[in-house]
Amino acid sequence: MGVLGGMGPLAGATFAARLVQLTPVTADQAHIPVLLRNDPRIPDRSANRLSDGPSPLPAMIEGMQDLQRWGADCVVIPCNTAHLWFAQLRDSVSVPVLHIVDSVIQDLQRNGIHDGPVGVMGTPATIQLGLYQDALRAAGYEPLTDPDNVIRDLSMQSIAAVKSNQDALAFAPAAEAVGRLTDLGARAVILGCTELPLAIPPVRRNEFSVVISDSIDALARAVLDAFSRPASASQAAG
Amino acid sequence: MGVLGGMGPLAGATFAARLVQLTPVTADQAHIPVLLRNDPRIPDRSANRLSDGPSPLPAMIEGMQDLQRWGADCVVIPCNTAHLWFAQLRDSVSVPVLHIVDSVIQDLQRNGIHDGPVGVMGTPATIQLGLYQDALRAAGYEPLTDPDNVIRDLSMQSIAAVKSNQDALAFAPAAEAVGRLTDLGARAVILGCTELPLAIPPVRRNEFSVVISDSIDALARAVLDAFSRPASASQAAG
Repeated sequence: MGVLGGMGPLAGATFAARLVQLTPVTADQAHIPVLLRNDPRIPDRSANRLSDGPSPLPAMIEGMQDLQRWGADCVVIPCNTAHLWFAQLRDSVSVPVLHIVDSVIQDLQRNGIHDGPVGVMGTPATIQLGLYQDALRAAGYEPLTDPDNVIRDLSMQSIAAVKSNQDALAFAPAAEAVGRLTDLGARAVILGCTELPLAIPPVRRNEFSVVISDSIDALARAVLDAFSRPASASQAAG
Repeated sequence: MGVLGGMGPLAGATFAARLVQLTPVTADQAHIPVLLRNDPRIPDRSANRLSDGPSPLPAMIEGMQDLQRWGADCVVIPCNTAHLWFAQLRDSVSVPVLHIVDSVIQDLQRNGIHDGPVGVMGTPATIQLGLYQDALRAAGYEPLTDPDNVIRDLSMQSIAAVKSNQDALAFAPAAEAVGRLTDLGARAVILGCTELPLAIPPVRRNEFSVVISDSIDALARAVLDAFSRPASASQAAG
C-alpha cells in the first residue's frame, strides 16, 4: 500500500498510524505493509487553486510514480485538497488509487447516514471547488456548507493550528464549526481536510451529537476493505 | 530521511508523526522529507534472539537497501530490539545510520542526567543481551534492570497491549514498572522499546517523578539535530 503523504506531513504519518490502529489483529506481521512517502516539499495545494501559487501537480505525479516504482500495488492520498487533481494523479500510474471522497461516503453509510443534510468542513479550495458537494449530491445527500464563510474561517483557524503543532488551539474553532453545522440541521459532519481529524481527535468525538466522518479514518477503513476484498480495489479506483 | 519501520508498524508510524510534531516550524514545506518503509512482515526480533524463530536480518537488510536505493541519505530504525543487529544493518548501506541508544543517551544529557542510576525497560531480548546496559556504563551511568524479572514481565504486558491496539490496558503495567525502578533509585527511566512510549504517552509523562526518556522521541530529536548540523550525522553513525 503506497501512501502519498506530506500534505501535510502530520496527516500522512497519522494516516499510517490510524491504519495500524484500525486493523483488528495482534501480531505485527498481520498488518498491511505500507510505504509512506512523506515529502512535504510539494507546493501548497490551496495556494495554487485559489491564488497564483506554483502547481503541486508535477511533484504529486513524481510521488505517485515513485510509489509505483517502489512496489506499491495500490495508492492512497491522505489530503483532501490534493483530490482536486485526482483524475490526473490516478492516470499517472497503472495501479488502483482509492478516492478519499468515496471513502467518506462509504463511512457515512457505515454509520447509518444514507441521505439528508450533511455538513462539510475543509479548506477554502475544496469547499469553493465543490470537491465533496458534487459527490454528496450524486449519492443522494444534501451538502451543507457555508453561507457566510464563518465555517470556512473556523476551519482554517483550526487547520493552521494543527500545521503549527498547536493541537490544543485547534479544537475550539473546529468544535464551533461542527456546532454551527449541527444547528443548520446536519445529520453528520465531514472533517474534509486531513488536518481536521487531528483537531478533533477520535477520543473527543463523543462530545458531539452528530456523526463525525473523519476523512483519515474513512480512507484507512477503505484500505482495509480493499485489502480484505481485493476485487473491490480496482472498482474503487475507477 | 529513511525510516525502517514495521517493528512494530505503530512504532514506525508514530516515529514519523513525532518527528513532525517535534519540528519547530509552521509550514508543511519546512519539514524533513521522510520515507517510511512500514513493512511488518519482518520476522519477530525477540523470538529469534531468545528462542528458535527465523532470523529477521535478511528482511531488515532488504529494507535498509530499499531505502537507500529509493534515495534516503540517512536511515533510522525505530525499534530497539532491531539494534541487536545494528552493526550488520549499518554495514549493509553506505549512508549514515543513527543508533537509537546513542539518541537516548543524548536525550538523558539534554534532560540534565549525566550519571547515576538509570532504569531500563525493554523487551526481554534487549535487556538480557544488554543493549542499553553496556552503552550506559560506557557513558558513566549505572544501569538498573531487573533483579527479579518483575519489570521485564510488566514491560512485556504493556508491549503486548500496545501491539493489540489496547492502549488503555498498556498504561498500568508500564507505570508500575517506572514506579518500581524509581523506588530502586533511578534518576531517569528509559522506555527502551518503541511500543512503551505509546503505553505512557507524552501527555502523561508529568505523572512521574523521574525523567522519562522516550526512545521514539529521542530518535526523532537526534534526526532533527543531524539535519540541522549535517556534520554530526556521519559521526553518530560511526
